[in-house]
Amino acid sequence: MKAPIRVAVTGAAGNIGYALLFRIASGDCFGKDQPVILQLLEVTPALGKLDGVVMELLDCAFPLVVGIETSDDPNVAFRGANYAFLVGSRPRGPGMERSDLLQVNGSIFTAQGKALNDNAASDIRVCVVGNPCNTNCLIAMNAAKDIPASRFTAMTRLDQNRAVAQIAQKLGQPVSAVSNLAVWGNHSPTMFADFAHATVNRVPVTDLIDEAWLRETFIKTVAQRGKAIIDARGVSSAASAAGAAIDHMADWYHGTAPGAWASVAIASQGWYGIPEGLIFSFPVTIHNGEFTVVEGLKHGDFAQAKLAATLAELQEERAMVASLLG
Amino acid sequence: MKAPIRVAVTGAAGNIGYALLFRIASGDCFGKDQPVILQLLEVTPALGKLDGVVMELLDCAFPLVVGIETSDDPNVAFRGANYAFLVGSRPRGPGMERSDLLQVNGSIFTAQGKALNDNAASDIRVCVVGNPCNTNCLIAMNAAKDIPASRFTAMTRLDQNRAVAQIAQKLGQPVSAVSNLAVWGNHSPTMFADFAHATVNRVPVTDLIDEAWLRETFIKTVAQRGKAIIDARGVSSAASAAGAAIDHMADWYHGTAPGAWASVAIASQGWYGIPEGLIFSFPVTIHNGEFTVVEGLKHGDFAQAKLAATLAELQEERAMVASLLG
Repeated sequence: MKAPIRVAVTGAAGNIGYALLFRIASGDCFGKDQPVILQLLEVTPALGKLDGVVMELLDCAFPLVVGIETSDDPNVAFRGANYAFLVGSRPRGPGMERSDLLQVNGSIFTAQGKALNDNAASDIRVCVVGNPCNTNCLIAMNAAKDIPASRFTAMTRLDQNRAVAQIAQKLGQPVSAVSNLAVWGNHSPTMFADFAHATVNRVPVTDLIDEAWLRETFIKTVAQRGKAIIDARGVSSAASAAGAAIDHMADWYHGTAPGAWASVAIASQGWYGIPEGLIFSFPVTIHNGEFTVVEGLKHGDFAQAKLAATLAELQEERAMVASLLG
Repeated sequence: MKAPIRVAVTGAAGNIGYALLFRIASGDCFGKDQPVILQLLEVTPALGKLDGVVMELLDCAFPLVVGIETSDDPNVAFRGANYAFLVGSRPRGPGMERSDLLQVNGSIFTAQGKALNDNAASDIRVCVVGNPCNTNCLIAMNAAKDIPASRFTAMTRLDQNRAVAQIAQKLGQPVSAVSNLAVWGNHSPTMFADFAHATVNRVPVTDLIDEAWLRETFIKTVAQRGKAIIDARGVSSAASAAGAAIDHMADWYHGTAPGAWASVAIASQGWYGIPEGLIFSFPVTIHNGEFTVVEGLKHGDFAQAKLAATLAELQEERAMVASLLG
C-alpha cells in the first residue's frame, strides 16, 4: 500500500468541486492503488453545504479515502498538501468589469499563494481551475516565493478535450484516434486550438478537413463551448471541467503516454517568444512530474496571429493585476 | 479491445444521472478496457438539458465512450441494452399519498419493463435506483415476461455503504476493514442494516461496539441518512447514490471479491422465509453474473423483528400495486 497523498481542493462544495471529488476519491486521478487524504476549502457560508458533501463522500465507502478535512482557512486546507486543485473563484457578477473581476480574484489567489507557500508539502503541485485561471495562477505563483514556479499550472485541458471531441465528431472517428492537438495561450475565448500539427490515425487533420472549417467553425465552436453548455443545461460546465482537471493532474502524476501531448498553462521560460513568467498554455510532455515543452513547431501566419492575440490578452490581464505581483 | 457494451441510463439529465454518467464513461464501473455505448432516456421536457449533458460527455474525450444516443422513448433507449440503470422516477409531490406515488411510478416502470422485454439484449441486467426502488423493480420485472427474473435488481448498496462508513467512523478504522455488513429488505427507512454478522479486521462488530449503540443510533443514522444529507446540502444525495449504483453494477459485472458480500435487492426464491417473487435485499456473492444468496445466517429476536417490519412494508407496497402485476 502506497503512503497517502494529501490533495487539497478549493471551492469544494461548488458544482465543479462536487463533480471532481468523487472521481478523485474513486482513484480516477491518482490511480486505484494511491490512498488520498482530501483537504477541502470553502468560504465560511458554504461550510454547512460542504459538510453534506463530506457525508456523501463517506457514504461512498471509497477504500482509497483515508481522511477528509474541511476548513475555511487556506492555511489549514493546504497543510502538507502534495496536490492542490484551486477550483474556487469569484464569478463575474452583474455590472462587474473585467478589471474588477481580476482584482477580486487577485486577493483570493494572493492569499492562497501565500498559504500554499507557508503550508504545502515541498513537492506541492498546483492546478488552477478557477477563472480567469491563467492570471489567477500567475498571482498565486508570485505570492508563493519559496515554491518553484514550475509547480504552478492553469488548466487548458478542457479546451484541448473539447477540441479533440470536435475533430473526432467531424470525422466520425474515436477520440483516441486524435493526437497532438494543442491549445495555446489563455483559457478564454482567445485561446488557440492548434489544428495544424494535429493528426487523426497519424494523418494530418489538415489533409482530412477543409481548412476554412478548421479556421472558422472549429475555432469558434471550441471557444464558445462554455456558453453553448450553459444554454443547453441552464448551468455552466461542471463534470467536463472536473474531467479535464482529472486528466491534467493524472498526466502530471503518471506522466504522458509515449507520443502524447498535454496542453498545460505554465510559466513561460521564453518558449516560442512568450515573455518569461507569463502563464501561457503550451503543448508539453510530462515525465517524473517535470514538463517539457514541445519545441520546434512551426506556426503559419494564421497561427501567429492567433498566438499574438491570446498573448496580448494575457499581457493586458497581467498589467491589470501588476500591483499584486510585487 | 473488447466489444462495446450498451448501457442504458434513465433520468439521465437528473442529478444522480449527471453524477453517474461520467463515472461510467471513465471506466469506473465496467473497467478501463470495456468500451461503452451510452443510451440515455429522459422525459421529453428534459431532452434539451440532456443535450447539454451529452455535450459535456463528449467534451471529456473519454476513450471508452464509443457512442452516445438519447431518446424520450424507452423502446429506443433500451434497444440492444446489456445493462440498464433505471434512475428516473417521479418523486413524491406535495399532498401525494404513498399509494399515489406507487401508482404514478407503476405506470413508468410498467412501460419500461415492457420496453426492456421487447428491445434489450438477451443478457440484459437491470438495476433500479429510482424510488420506491424495490416495488418499481417488482413492477418492471413483472412487465418483462420474457426476461429471467434474476436479471432485475433494486439498489440497497447505498444503505450498505452508509452502514459500512458509520461503523468505520465509529471505530476510527478504514472502510476496507469492515466486512459482511448486509442490508436486508426494502430500500426505505425500514431496511435492516444487519450488524450481527459484520466484522472489522475479522473481529465481530458486536465485540467492538456497544449493542445499544448499534440497535439505536447506528440503525437510525443509516435509515435517516438521506434526510440528513438534504438538510446539509439543500438537495438530495446524488454522487453517493451514483457511487452505490457503480458499486452495484461493478460487482455484477466483475463479480464480488473472495469473502465479500454485496447487498442486492432481488426476487426472493423463498430464502429466509421471504415470499417468492418479492424484491427483497439479501447479502449475496456474485460470480459470472449470477447471484448466490448467503445462506445459513442466524437471526436473533432483534433481527427477526426488523426483517418482519421491512417485509410487511414490502408486502403492503405490493398489495397497493397488485393491479399492475398482471
